[in-house]
Amino acid sequence: MRFDHDTLPQRVRFASGAAAENLAAEISTLGASRVMVIAGEAERELARTIAGNLPVAHWHHEVAMHVPVAVAERARTEAATHGIDALVSVGGGSTTGLAKAVALTTGLPIVAVPTTYAGSEATNVWGLTADGRKTTGTDDRVLPRAIVYDAALTLSLPPALSVASGLNALAHCVDSMWAPRTDPIDRAVAGEGIRALRIGLPLVADDPTGLEGREHALYGAYLSAVAFASAGSGLHHKICHVLGGMFDLPHAQTHAVVLPHVLAFNAPAAPEAERRIAAAFDAPTAVEGLNRLRERLDAPTALRTYGMPGDGIAAATEAVLAAVPANNPRTVTPDDIAGLLRAAWEGADPR
Amino acid sequence: MRFDHDTLPQRVRFASGAAAENLAAEISTLGASRVMVIAGEAERELARTIAGNLPVAHWHHEVAMHVPVAVAERARTEAATHGIDALVSVGGGSTTGLAKAVALTTGLPIVAVPTTYAGSEATNVWGLTADGRKTTGTDDRVLPRAIVYDAALTLSLPPALSVASGLNALAHCVDSMWAPRTDPIDRAVAGEGIRALRIGLPLVADDPTGLEGREHALYGAYLSAVAFASAGSGLHHKICHVLGGMFDLPHAQTHAVVLPHVLAFNAPAAPEAERRIAAAFDAPTAVEGLNRLRERLDAPTALRTYGMPGDGIAAATEAVLAAVPANNPRTVTPDDIAGLLRAAWEGADPR
Repeated sequence: MRFDHDTLPQRVRFASGAAAENLAAEISTLGASRVMVIAGEAERELARTIAGNLPVAHWHHEVAMHVPVAVAERARTEAATHGIDALVSVGGGSTTGLAKAVALTTGLPIVAVPTTYAGSEATNVWGLTADGRKTTGTDDRVLPRAIVYDAALTLSLPPALSVASGLNALAHCVDSMWAPRTDPIDRAVAGEGIRALRIGLPLVADDPTGLEGREHALYGAYLSAVAFASAGSGLHHKICHVLGGMFDLPHAQTHAVVLPHVLAFNAPAAPEAERRIAAAFDAPTAVEGLNRLRERLDAPTALRTYGMPGDGIAAATEAVLAAVPANNPRTVTPDDIAGLLRAAWEGADPR
Repeated sequence: MRFDHDTLPQRVRFASGAAAENLAAEISTLGASRVMVIAGEAERELARTIAGNLPVAHWHHEVAMHVPVAVAERARTEAATHGIDALVSVGGGSTTGLAKAVALTTGLPIVAVPTTYAGSEATNVWGLTADGRKTTGTDDRVLPRAIVYDAALTLSLPPALSVASGLNALAHCVDSMWAPRTDPIDRAVAGEGIRALRIGLPLVADDPTGLEGREHALYGAYLSAVAFASAGSGLHHKICHVLGGMFDLPHAQTHAVVLPHVLAFNAPAAPEAERRIAAAFDAPTAVEGLNRLRERLDAPTALRTYGMPGDGIAAATEAVLAAVPANNPRTVTPDDIAGLLRAAWEGADPR
């Protein structure tokens, strides 16, 4: 047993229906008197409802995917112009990401109010896009001081998107089991995340307007982000990154299709991960547990459905091989990756 | 699901045989140039070995149980006299506690090198004793910035004391499942702690000079402290506190005897705790899991062995009733407590 682990400071307030009250308490704790609320157009009304009683000096509604630098610059200028002393983000990953971009240069504290399962609120990772290229980095200044989780705010997330986003969070948990900086603490957190998502996602699918499933899923998404931010990207995320960039595949679906194949490949060589994942799924094996959940959720099964060309497998194999983490539990040959990608492409049973 | 959770910032470096190297790295990260090393007489040589290459401006070897105020004052004066910019503690709970007492008034950063399973290094709790009265409090300034765990340093802890101390850590985990501020994160951490102690303690008992059991036990002790500091004192610790104060019973043994009775009492009313504890013990039920481990470790079974008078049960019952946490999963009657205390006193089977 040999590891380094950095625990990042953050307060989590988790209570359905209590977003306004908990947000006000956190702003009061910060002693902030000139708040900038960042919320996209879709969350404009929601943000007014939640943050209406705060000392808001400016409402910012320009939010864009992948945080374009120009958008970040405008938000930073507004923060300076209005003498802002705290940021509140209300929305998904792009909204939290914009708040982080402002915090990165200003050091302003963030209170995040997430409305999706993206998980960005629980990490110190920032990202900015310029000329089509995304730059990412880690900086403790961008870690939100507090997260206000209110599962009622996720009720408007459509069921299919909720499940896809939840499976993405699940992939973070599974990949954290063998990612480059993985440690026992990450694996324990990831196991708890898998358990929460395994319980929550079927409930969300069956009853999208019920709170119980939403709470478990949101809690699981939080844990997935904590584990993933600490452990880093493992084989699964390297593969999905290559495929996404090469064939412009949809993010969540790519993760959902690839995950069971990576798990089936790695699990036999990673007994501790196998044990933890199986236990979290309450299933005899890790692969069996994931497959049960995927069947229950009618998860996507084949990359060719999403536009990946069969003759792209060779090029993807080469790119994946160059990206395989050195600590992956199994040595990876070109044939392994080609076989894995073909299985994911055609939708073969990962068992 | 409704909770608030504060995650405290801390770096953990866990590697057997690497204490000197990891400690040097942490002092370098802090940029410290005038270190005060706090280590009791028993750890004098050990401290010289581990911290010999640091920029030590002062070695402090006066350490006493429960951190007497006079001892703390002398250490604070020395820190000021020598222009200290970082504290290193090498030892058990009393040593870490003294470093915390200095940090409390000076704000100096601490790097803790624990040699026992006390767990103080992972909490923001401080304690000071004056005129026989102990005052405790929480302050983020006393939380060590980093912990250097080296299981090789615990090899000198005698097997019986190791097991007693490990069972004390186990009690922290179990009680975290229903303590006043418990939340799902605490319970997940506590479950991982139970798992580690369940694996580690029998190995320590069988092979006290082997590293494997020591590593699991030390990792479990760390987790038990993290969970307990967040969740607070539950019914078990309230009972032990009363008994310890009233009859001057030995700390670790009291915990070891009382724990199974509290678990047997609370578990039927706490299904999530029951499930988590049983899973962590890899046993059909929580009580069965704890009993198996206790039998394996030949744990103490009766308080009368340690000097508690049978006619003290009535007075203890009254004192315990006044201290029962409001959120305990089962309502507690005088008969419940009297029965529990009698069972613990005579060493009845807690099943």
